[in-house]
Amino acid sequence: MRIIKKSKEINSLFNSIRRTGFVPTMGSLHKGHESLIKKSIKQNNITFVSIFINPKQFTNKNDLINYPRRLNDDIKICKKLKVDYLFLPSFKEVYSWKMKMKKYPKIKSIMEHKYRKGHFNGVLKVIEKLSDIIPANKMYLGEKDFQQLKIIEDYFHLNKINTKIIKCKIIRDKNGLALSSRNKLLAKKDLLKAARIINFIKKNILKKKPLNDKIKIVKKYLKDSKINFDYVKNINIKNFEIEKKKTKYSRFFIAFYIKNIRLIDNI
Amino acid sequence: MRIIKKSKEINSLFNSIRRTGFVPTMGSLHKGHESLIKKSIKQNNITFVSIFINPKQFTNKNDLINYPRRLNDDIKICKKLKVDYLFLPSFKEVYSWKMKMKKYPKIKSIMEHKYRKGHFNGVLKVIEKLSDIIPANKMYLGEKDFQQLKIIEDYFHLNKINTKIIKCKIIRDKNGLALSSRNKLLAKKDLLKAARIINFIKKNILKKKPLNDKIKIVKKYLKDSKINFDYVKNINIKNFEIEKKKTKYSRFFIAFYIKNIRLIDNI
Repeated sequence: MRIIKKSKEINSLFNSIRRTGFVPTMGSLHKGHESLIKKSIKQNNITFVSIFINPKQFTNKNDLINYPRRLNDDIKICKKLKVDYLFLPSFKEVYSWKMKMKKYPKIKSIMEHKYRKGHFNGVLKVIEKLSDIIPANKMYLGEKDFQQLKIIEDYFHLNKINTKIIKCKIIRDKNGLALSSRNKLLAKKDLLKAARIINFIKKNILKKKPLNDKIKIVKKYLKDSKINFDYVKNINIKNFEIEKKKTKYSRFFIAFYIKNIRLIDNI
Repeated sequence: MRIIKKSKEINSLFNSIRRTGFVPTMGSLHKGHESLIKKSIKQNNITFVSIFINPKQFTNKNDLINYPRRLNDDIKICKKLKVDYLFLPSFKEVYSWKMKMKKYPKIKSIMEHKYRKGHFNGVLKVIEKLSDIIPANKMYLGEKDFQQLKIIEDYFHLNKINTKIIKCKIIRDKNGLALSSRNKLLAKKDLLKAARIINFIKKNILKKKPLNDKIKIVKKYLKDSKINFDYVKNINIKNFEIEKKKTKYSRFFIAFYIKNIRLIDNI
């Protein structure tokens, strides 16, 4: 029993009692996920992690079939990190959940929404359900999926969902490649190939040159290396418009393929 | 770590995470308080008990000065019952708390509000502050102070305060007397005297007689026993009107004095 004499203490206590964090994932947890989970555990009283491979957000059947599944490892990681609740729903469990229809934000036809038609509709559907099942105070999302993060934020804002999105920095391998569950589908030499591309972009970005020239250089590098890509864009992350000139909101986005595995990143 | 597969489980989990109960008291805890606390602990995830002798609700200075104070015993009881948080605020701590002015319900000038002018204004003032400091899901109040319970309920309703009042039955001594902190101010023989009155009323109520006759009999008994009293009334607890005929909402209320100690009860 704790004896309290100051109202202020109760005030902060109430905040902490009721503070819940939620990290929605599709499993195959890597250090990127771990950083989200650790942040949630640090900032909240109770942390929920969900693992659910959401078929509705896959635009390619083979991608869904091949998506890495490591449930036993994931459970071990969550236990090690002292996650309070791990939610492992079935498809039915997520999608038979009855609820009022929510409003969906308009999504600009750039980047992922342009090249993976229907992807974000699927993401919003699962977020709609999961955020209803787990109405946490904070949801932890990684900046690797920057556009997704932005869209979910818009969705919460539009529907007055009282969950704050906590943006978490991209976690990279020693070689510079952003961690991703899909990396598990690639051999070591392919991962190094991907890392070389990212490192080339990083170096290139630091140079003092017009933005358009930088993009041209990256595209040329990709073509010379015989790397397919969907886009190489500079986006203003405040208004999500394609930028021609560098501003303080500039961010460099890329989606490219290594052995048919699609990787995205932003710097 | 708990692994959950059903949304429903999370639903009830969320209710329990966020379920807080609050038992506001003026200390000198007895079995009546203990029953409130036990109920709160059973129904909630976290239980708050406050002990604060609220000067503003005393209409008689001597009553305030003589009000029993047993803080060490109270702390032991709370520890024994496994109360999570015991709030022991100072006067300043309660009343310097800044907040918007709330609306106060109209109180009918019967019973306590008639005989202890200003009492309920003081009660509402402290409830206004305490319910703001401890915004629990449920507040536990005993039916001995039935009118108070009703007024606080009206106050919460009027101000859309999201705290449900849980009415708890009167706990009585073996001899039939309702437990009250003020009982501690009376000698054993005086307590037996008070118990005899309550038992007389109980027996009398069970008899098949017009209500008015029953009240006359009680009043005569009090006068013959030289017991001062403020009121002996039959109240409809739904609309809080004085009743002339018995209904299913009838309740018998009494306020009487034993050696200048004012006792209230209802049956």
